[in-house]
Amino acid sequence: MQDTFRYIKQALGLAAQALFVSNPNPRVGCVLVAPDGLEIGSGHTQQAGGAHAEVMALRSAQEAGHSTQGATAYVTLEPCAHQGRTGPCCDALVAAGIGKVVASLTDPNPLVAGQGFARLRAAGVAVEVGPGAAESRELNIGFFSRMVRGIPWVRMKAATSLDGATALPNGTSQWITSPAARADGHAWRARACAVLTGIGTVLDDNPRLNVREVPTPRQPHVVVVDSQLQTPPDARLFMAGRACYIYAAIQNDEKKAALEASGATVICLPNAQGKVDLAAMLRDLAARGVNELHVEAGHKLNGSLLREGLVDELLIYMAPMLLGPGLGLAQVGPFEALAQGLKLDFMSVERLGPDLRIVARVPGHDTF
Amino acid sequence: MQDTFRYIKQALGLAAQALFVSNPNPRVGCVLVAPDGLEIGSGHTQQAGGAHAEVMALRSAQEAGHSTQGATAYVTLEPCAHQGRTGPCCDALVAAGIGKVVASLTDPNPLVAGQGFARLRAAGVAVEVGPGAAESRELNIGFFSRMVRGIPWVRMKAATSLDGATALPNGTSQWITSPAARADGHAWRARACAVLTGIGTVLDDNPRLNVREVPTPRQPHVVVVDSQLQTPPDARLFMAGRACYIYAAIQNDEKKAALEASGATVICLPNAQGKVDLAAMLRDLAARGVNELHVEAGHKLNGSLLREGLVDELLIYMAPMLLGPGLGLAQVGPFEALAQGLKLDFMSVERLGPDLRIVARVPGHDTF
Repeated sequence: MQDTFRYIKQALGLAAQALFVSNPNPRVGCVLVAPDGLEIGSGHTQQAGGAHAEVMALRSAQEAGHSTQGATAYVTLEPCAHQGRTGPCCDALVAAGIGKVVASLTDPNPLVAGQGFARLRAAGVAVEVGPGAAESRELNIGFFSRMVRGIPWVRMKAATSLDGATALPNGTSQWITSPAARADGHAWRARACAVLTGIGTVLDDNPRLNVREVPTPRQPHVVVVDSQLQTPPDARLFMAGRACYIYAAIQNDEKKAALEASGATVICLPNAQGKVDLAAMLRDLAARGVNELHVEAGHKLNGSLLREGLVDELLIYMAPMLLGPGLGLAQVGPFEALAQGLKLDFMSVERLGPDLRIVARVPGHDTF
Repeated sequence: MQDTFRYIKQALGLAAQALFVSNPNPRVGCVLVAPDGLEIGSGHTQQAGGAHAEVMALRSAQEAGHSTQGATAYVTLEPCAHQGRTGPCCDALVAAGIGKVVASLTDPNPLVAGQGFARLRAAGVAVEVGPGAAESRELNIGFFSRMVRGIPWVRMKAATSLDGATALPNGTSQWITSPAARADGHAWRARACAVLTGIGTVLDDNPRLNVREVPTPRQPHVVVVDSQLQTPPDARLFMAGRACYIYAAIQNDEKKAALEASGATVICLPNAQGKVDLAAMLRDLAARGVNELHVEAGHKLNGSLLREGLVDELLIYMAPMLLGPGLGLAQVGPFEALAQGLKLDFMSVERLGPDLRIVARVPGHDTF
């Protein structure tokens, strides 16, 4: 039993190495152990279209000349049972003579959803499910959200002073937090499938919204909420190697053509108020394979997303500074009773250079 | 050497037991160890006028029938050399035949300031100074502040939402934070010599500002900044067993007499603007024996204290909640550049039930 947890913990460590890599596929790790207790192979999910963790582990065992006959595979998610861009992992495990599979979780993908385990058992492979379940789900909360809820896991990032200002009254906000906090913010961008902002931020700051402060093998896509299609076709967020989704509330073929020429995909999803239907946008982004959506927007769009209950998690970098009046992190309220406030749960607080990183979640949003 | 740190750590633990007890005297602990290594006595400072730590330790050794001849005294502050309400501790140690004194720090009290060590050495007692210095100073930061700077250590407490609101626009603030946070706030009141508030809070909330949520042998004094002497003589903060200092900017014999009849001491300290001279107030409070001043005031008085550079430490209880527009913790700014913001250093962050407790300090203020 102790061995089980040790190997699953090791597999979770491997899965974490896929954090910036495997999107939109889940982050999965696998460790192979021979019947004599020798660890013979390991691996994690590669970039989409590349090998899954189980196949990487089998390959590493074979390359080292180890027999996989009768070995136990410790894997942090159910081996897939479907033909995607790669063959089914459960078949590869059976073909390699694996005797037992210990998996953290059932894959929520309806194309798998227990069929991987069923195919393994039908082939005579022992299956144990459960060790490391909570950690594996946390690593893949965006994948689970997309599969189970049909929407991404929405994480809203903001940098604030201790007294809650994200910018001075004149809009100045660069930089409230430290280089250490900003680098950490880039690591959270890197794990997201897409970074979302609003047209206000595009017009005011012309940000790139890419990952620069940490090494990453891929850049997240970028999403702009832009009701009136005001994004300049030469905005800095247009970048080779990633998609740019612009959600609009108007049809304008000329503007659309200009933005598409810059590489954008323009999607018109108006609501009754002539704004972008944000809930429909999330469903559309999930259909496009977005697991974790990283929001870096101004207080208006932040407020809209929060008021509509579309935010799951807040990622707050807090600087040890009092700035007095300024822009807040989200336009909510004004409230007349404390019970009307938007309730959260603190998940973690870390020191990051001189700053704090606070992760908070909307209660109930992670229990899908 | 290992023993030295073990006994000093034990003495620091005893000193911490005097946290709610010894004001305005410092929090000091003492452990006595016989030449054969047997621990023979220990103690900490009692309420003002009672025995100091060294005398408590000597008594406990004598009551247990141990000889103190040649013993080592581990004590977290220099033994006193002056006749106060109790006799000089250095003489008591010499009389008891103590062979060596290991002390964390020199007493900053000008009546002691090395004379205790000098008297011990003159009597043939070995003296070592240093182990546990930083911890002992932290425990007594208010005492050191009063002795060295001539003003109390000023700690400003506030309860805020994650987005920086301390109250809704209509003033509602009870309760933003949890019972766990409020009880912790009372423990910080209990260690203070005095709790300060402003007339606005007195008129709006009529608070008691005493310690209720944790057991304490004494109540902190209460201080009101009340330029126009508007404190109602029947305000709830008048309470037997503690002083109430009201700082005013006007002379009004009738109001003064009414407040004094309620037990207040009224002090008129106007500045050129017709407000209370807050810096002079701090000097006056130090002269009255206030080591740690615990501020629980509204955003106006908080802002004045911060702008005048009179705050040393912030004690923030932060609730996992977004409240939108409301009152902030301190009226500072508005600023036009981030460099104008009031800079702090985070000292500690703790989870407290659902809330966070953040302690931050003004850089440079703790290096007196």
